[in-house]
Amino acid sequence: MVLNGPNLNLLGAREPEIYGHSTYVELVTNLTAFGVEIGLEVTIRQTNDEAELITWLQECFTEKIDVVINPAAFTHYSYGLRDAVAMLTTSGTKVIEVHISNPSAREEFRHNSVISGVASGVIAGFGVDSYKLALRHLAS
Amino acid sequence: MVLNGPNLNLLGAREPEIYGHSTYVELVTNLTAFGVEIGLEVTIRQTNDEAELITWLQECFTEKIDVVINPAAFTHYSYGLRDAVAMLTTSGTKVIEVHISNPSAREEFRHNSVISGVASGVIAGFGVDSYKLALRHLAS
Amino acid sequence: MVLNGPNLNLLGAREPEIYGHSTYVELVTNLTAFGVEIGLEVTIRQTNDEAELITWLQECFTEKIDVVINPAAFTHYSYGLRDAVAMLTTSGTKVIEVHISNPSAREEFRHNSVISGVASGVIAGFGVDSYKLALRHLAS
Amino acid sequence: MVLNGPNLNLLGAREPEIYGHSTYVELVTNLTAFGVEIGLEVTIRQTNDEAELITWLQECFTEKIDVVINPAAFTHYSYGLRDAVAMLTTSGTKVIEVHISNPSAREEFRHNSVISGVASGVIAGFGVDSYKLALRHLAS
Amino acid sequence: MVLNGPNLNLLGAREPEIYGHSTYVELVTNLTAFGVEIGLEVTIRQTNDEAELITWLQECFTEKIDVVINPAAFTHYSYGLRDAVAMLTTSGTKVIEVHISNPSAREEFRHNSVISGVASGVIAGFGVDSYKLALRHLAS
Amino acid sequence: MVLNGPNLNLLGAREPEIYGHSTYVELVTNLTAFGVEIGLEVTIRQTNDEAELITWLQECFTEKIDVVINPAAFTHYSYGLRDAVAMLTTSGTKVIEVHISNPSAREEFRHNSVISGVASGVIAGFGVDSYKLALRHLAS
Amino acid sequence: MVLNGPNLNLLGAREPEIYGHSTYVELVTNLTAFGVEIGLEVTIRQTNDEAELITWLQECFTEKIDVVINPAAFTHYSYGLRDAVAMLTTSGTKVIEVHISNPSAREEFRHNSVISGVASGVIAGFGVDSYKLALRHLAS
Amino acid sequence: MVLNGPNLNLLGAREPEIYGHSTYVELVTNLTAFGVEIGLEVTIRQTNDEAELITWLQECFTEKIDVVINPAAFTHYSYGLRDAVAMLTTSGTKVIEVHISNPSAREEFRHNSVISGVASGVIAGFGVDSYKLALRHLAS
Amino acid sequence: MVLNGPNLNLLGAREPEIYGHSTYVELVTNLTAFGVEIGLEVTIRQTNDEAELITWLQECFTEKIDVVINPAAFTHYSYGLRDAVAMLTTSGTKVIEVHISNPSAREEFRHNSVISGVASGVIAGFGVDSYKLALRHLAS
Amino acid sequence: MVLNGPNLNLLGAREPEIYGHSTYVELVTNLTAFGVEIGLEVTIRQTNDEAELITWLQECFTEKIDVVINPAAFTHYSYGLRDAVAMLTTSGTKVIEVHISNPSAREEFRHNSVISGVASGVIAGFGVDSYKLALRHLAS
Amino acid sequence: MVLNGPNLNLLGAREPEIYGHSTYVELVTNLTAFGVEIGLEVTIRQTNDEAELITWLQECFTEKIDVVINPAAFTHYSYGLRDAVAMLTTSGTKVIEVHISNPSAREEFRHNSVISGVASGVIAGFGVDSYKLALRHLAS
Amino acid sequence: MVLNGPNLNLLGAREPEIYGHSTYVELVTNLTAFGVEIGLEVTIRQTNDEAELITWLQECFTEKIDVVINPAAFTHYSYGLRDAVAMLTTSGTKVIEVHISNPSAREEFRHNSVISGVASGVIAGFGVDSYKLALRHLAS
Repeated sequence: MVLNGPNLNLLGAREPEIYGHSTYVELVTNLTAFGVEIGLEVTIRQTNDEAELITWLQECFTEKIDVVINPAAFTHYSYGLRDAVAMLTTSGTKVIEVHISNPSAREEFRHNSVISGVASGVIAGFGVDSYKLALRHLAS
Repeated sequence: MVLNGPNLNLLGAREPEIYGHSTYVELVTNLTAFGVEIGLEVTIRQTNDEAELITWLQECFTEKIDVVINPAAFTHYSYGLRDAVAMLTTSGTKVIEVHISNPSAREEFRHNSVISGVASGVIAGFGVDSYKLALRHLAS
Repeated sequence: MVLNGPNLNLLGAREPEIYGHSTYVELVTNLTAFGVEIGLEVTIRQTNDEAELITWLQECFTEKIDVVINPAAFTHYSYGLRDAVAMLTTSGTKVIEVHISNPSAREEFRHNSVISGVASGVIAGFGVDSYKLALRHLAS
Repeated sequence: MVLNGPNLNLLGAREPEIYGHSTYVELVTNLTAFGVEIGLEVTIRQTNDEAELITWLQECFTEKIDVVINPAAFTHYSYGLRDAVAMLTTSGTKVIEVHISNPSAREEFRHNSVISGVASGVIAGFGVDSYKLALRHLAS
Repeated sequence: MVLNGPNLNLLGAREPEIYGHSTYVELVTNLTAFGVEIGLEVTIRQTNDEAELITWLQECFTEKIDVVINPAAFTHYSYGLRDAVAMLTTSGTKVIEVHISNPSAREEFRHNSVISGVASGVIAGFGVDSYKLALRHLAS
Repeated sequence: MVLNGPNLNLLGAREPEIYGHSTYVELVTNLTAFGVEIGLEVTIRQTNDEAELITWLQECFTEKIDVVINPAAFTHYSYGLRDAVAMLTTSGTKVIEVHISNPSAREEFRHNSVISGVASGVIAGFGVDSYKLALRHLAS
Repeated sequence: MVLNGPNLNLLGAREPEIYGHSTYVELVTNLTAFGVEIGLEVTIRQTNDEAELITWLQECFTEKIDVVINPAAFTHYSYGLRDAVAMLTTSGTKVIEVHISNPSAREEFRHNSVISGVASGVIAGFGVDSYKLALRHLAS
Repeated sequence: MVLNGPNLNLLGAREPEIYGHSTYVELVTNLTAFGVEIGLEVTIRQTNDEAELITWLQECFTEKIDVVINPAAFTHYSYGLRDAVAMLTTSGTKVIEVHISNPSAREEFRHNSVISGVASGVIAGFGVDSYKLALRHLAS
Repeated sequence: MVLNGPNLNLLGAREPEIYGHSTYVELVTNLTAFGVEIGLEVTIRQTNDEAELITWLQECFTEKIDVVINPAAFTHYSYGLRDAVAMLTTSGTKVIEVHISNPSAREEFRHNSVISGVASGVIAGFGVDSYKLALRHLAS
Repeated sequence: MVLNGPNLNLLGAREPEIYGHSTYVELVTNLTAFGVEIGLEVTIRQTNDEAELITWLQECFTEKIDVVINPAAFTHYSYGLRDAVAMLTTSGTKVIEVHISNPSAREEFRHNSVISGVASGVIAGFGVDSYKLALRHLAS
Repeated sequence: MVLNGPNLNLLGAREPEIYGHSTYVELVTNLTAFGVEIGLEVTIRQTNDEAELITWLQECFTEKIDVVINPAAFTHYSYGLRDAVAMLTTSGTKVIEVHISNPSAREEFRHNSVISGVASGVIAGFGVDSYKLALRHLAS
Repeated sequence: MVLNGPNLNLLGAREPEIYGHSTYVELVTNLTAFGVEIGLEVTIRQTNDEAELITWLQECFTEKIDVVINPAAFTHYSYGLRDAVAMLTTSGTKVIEVHISNPSAREEFRHNSVISGVASGVIAGFGVDSYKLALRHLAS
């Protein structure tokens, strides 16, 4: 399960000098193909809605599905997301936090992630490859 | 009106060493029965959605219904919720903030509640009994 | 496009000593009439839902529509909103942040806006006139 | 055992707009009667002396007596009290921290409690009912 | 009365990528004409001298003249100015704080205004139009 | 009533380069004589005990006696003392905080007084004359 | 020499609930008369100008004249004033900082004085009597 | 002189995983014997009372007796104790601060000692041996 | 080039509950084999010496060799390392920061990396797989 | 152009253990002679007035004259000066900040310069030689 | 094993008013003799090199040798040293942190030790006797 | 003696937009020639190794040789270097801290120097001329 947070649906259109020129549709296509390549069934979702993201994580918790999550702006304040992530990782399901750009190289407020402390691991700064590395880790 | 914030629907399944083993369904049953016992009509709702929680508070504001609220993770950042709570308490409707566990005994970020400053009162650390004590106060 | 954040639908009923006595319906009527007066097509929306607000901003981004936004409580923590606003302003669409009251004259936590840093401009403290001044700027 | 910290002996005379008009003597009478009602033997003490409060807590520790404590101003700095409270709660005796008013709704320095982190639970903002709810919890 | 703080006399010459290319003389001409247009008698002054600015505010206080002020760098430290502004606004005379650029989008130290907390309102980020919107508000 | 906090009984013996060479007995004699001179009945007490100081303040509260207090080290942390002082000053009895030396010219931790915010006034840095000026103010 | 900082010339007219109803002219008359009474030649000056205040202090330094200063808003940021005051006090001339109201009982930013650390002493909260006590100390 | 602060009388009973299993009586016996062994007359006292501790330190000051002190929780806030300790050490009498456990390895608030800055030296983390090493240093 | 910072040579022996049981020799063998597998020439070095680490980075800078670096404890303070890393990344050579465990889930001081702000990307929390994912990214 | 801030006119008389014994007149003479020696036309001014200092900087801006400035106490708070300095340095005119003593070796508040961030360079701690080194740099 | 950090080789020559007049050679002689006296084989080393210190600690880890360490300036920033120390103490080997002077009585930055949190114990302020007490503890 | 810290050996190659295009070899040649010109024997060294830098400073201490030091990144954290520098300056040997660029105009972490507080003086922002000015001061 690959979950994407707010504004990622406009990838490619949105500040391309930071997030790159490939669009969200390309991301989905790319990761789906990559999933096939490494033998992993990949479902990709995006929402601007914190509640929906929490609910998806709860589904993964119940069904014990590993998660790759790009929380986007929620990274910096959504303790609701944090609690949901912690629920998975303390029960043995993996949740990998990924970022397209490197938050540490951007504005001060992006240096703090309220998610990282309970995530299984973090991958940031590799563009779309951040997702792929995360998937590959889950596949191994 | 008893309102519950994000992830409380998974009570019992989620980190039971912190939140206890009784499930959300048991909580609802328990509190409904307790409402009958103390002669209070109790409605219990849960949502992962900040907007829905705010909307429920607005209903209580319009209809002047006292509220018991467990804001869960929203406790620590939802100024939207705070504004809604303040709307009720400054107009004379009670809003009691409850917590199952004691946030002061947990991670640093849980020590700060953006809700407490405008709540009528706070009850924390008594498990399900936190809700019952709040209801009993409203009944008196 | 005039976008309003959480609890603004209860304008007039909510803490009138701070937000004034005119209701949200009056605000809508007032601004619509004002739009006609200054020759600007004005659409006014309100939501308690961060995701909906982000989605409306995304629409404005796609259609290059200037925005007047009163983020209400989201002002102080919604980096999701900030990212959406930045998306518009870095691409040349205007987003003006308005406030009915003056946040700097209220509680400490209201002194910090996570939106202002990426807004085109800020107007605060003039009641409903805050919106009108913003619209007038867009009209000019 | 109900323990009260500094200046609570002047309840009713002291800043009644915050602490209410009922006096300390009325508090004692009220709680004693309530104890009888719920079948709990209630002893009520007050002191301005940190050392005496610590010593009372040590007695409760030795005799395994649950405690309801209103630390008043000591709440904000008495680590000596904290250590004594921790001694009880880590050994299984309950200590409930109560407050007549809601400290979070008052001056900044009252937002921090050095006791809460080791208390069994916290009840604040319900006037004399804060004590009653605490006693009722112990009775249950 | 429109009052301007330090270095604004060099508008147009000074860091034009931030403050624009129109000069201080053009600003004066522009605002005077605008005053005529909206039927407001507009006097415009500039000084690098905190004391002079305070003295002008004292005159406005005595004569109950509404003020539009761009405190420039004084925004960030002149409590002397703040006290003078508060003197007017607590007695019912309006003082509107304006900025040509948006301070929140610039260096960290510019995010803090010691004036805003006592100003009637704040308008920032609209270039010369910041002044005009303020004047228009006073005219209405 | 002149109240003195911890270690002031050793005045003259204790760090004379800061507190001067005149002893506590001399202070008492000096102030008693001065009381006679300005027609004020002066009682002078000293204690190392926070509880005793609070109790003395409570007596003054009950009997509406103005107080000159040198809280010594309690200045920097005793919120218990603060609450007692506030009790007097909010009910119209004066409490003047005095210091022999000037705390602002000493260690960092001495720059903060938890008492000053609720005292009627503060006099610091004049040696024994700090007490005399306070008494003279009460006499006038 | 009695020196007064910005906005004190409007005493009586300015926020009388804080600064009292007696005017600056009355203050001057009052203190001059008091000077005669205690046998002290008193010169009283006021300015809104930091530079003028510094220059007056330099004169007192050169002529070794003790100073009573009410730095008003300069208290909180004028290190220029601080350096001038230090120049006097380290060379044995007295400078007493006075305040009409008690800054510690007002806004947060007023709790910090950059002057106190180098002043001979501080007197605050006694209205016009703050000046008189300071003069009396100098007379003794 | 060996002085012990609050709750140390319950050594052995209190949180033994931190403070060890040997009781306060054993501590006294142990240190008395050790005093005999190294030829030092050792008096050992314990109190929960800050005032009593200060008074004991004042006696040692007057009689120039070196002190070993375990201030327990007072370590973190008792500036009253600090002033008393400073009185001894600035006059040449030694005061050694000891701790049974290592405060730096425990909760954040225990990392700060208001005593250490004026103590002759600090020994922490060696259980009862902390006292013995301090005594041995005094004996040498 | 894979560079390892202080104490990583004792991998397996050192706090295995955090860093795992596989030894440094196994890490080297494992990564070398993995390099062969993905067609990347992998050189692996370890040092406890900040200067040596800087010098190795300088070599990579000169020869334009991409780097995978686990700075271990240097992560939190070595600005010397940061400057060397920045030298590479601003000139187009990649430097990927990896961590075996997830620093965000450990002590507070480990949440801050002085390297991340200038690294090409960050991978943390996957044990030895952190290195492999980094190498794979470089290979792609 | 050599500009000097507040209290520098009393050089030699003011705290000579910090600022040295040579007077301001000697400084002027010394630097003028030095200017001749290195072939630089040197004008030296001093003022206690922030506004005058800003105005002088504006002249240098208009006439593109390099500046050596010792802002004295203004260093620590005058953002007005900062803006004026930035105006010069961003347009290619040099402004060198000099200090007679080394501010980093003095009080905490002197460690922060609001000017340094926009100055061309900083020279501190060499007495009058700080000015000479700055002039020599401009001459080269 | 007694390990000494940077600049301790110049003991006696370096700031003797803080570190005393006995030289490093005398320290070595003194401690070696003392080791013989208490029946402990003592090896004493000094280095200015963080890496060498870490490597020595790794040797002690491997060979399970208890350590007395004076980290000198490394105390305040070397997390590399901290990790090495933690490696020993979590595996049961003792590491005692010693200081010749009392860091808490010196500059602010010396109040923080990054080592203490993982050391077995801390001894500070006793000159050379700090080492001897540590050795004696290891001998017992 | 001119000492250079980490990464300065790659001057010219490393981020030339900040550090300029002239290489380290040119720096050495340039300064050596300049030494001859002003009659000063100049030895120039560079190292990435904190320990080596400390050792060189110790040599200068022993032989009383004045030092010009560019600590590069060590500026911001090496208290080991600070202690070595303090050793020289408190004994009368000069140590001048120089920087090629102006740290105050760069990233936040570069605004803090742990060296400046004990250096004789600081020169920053003049490129290679920073060194020359320092040498010239030593020559005078």
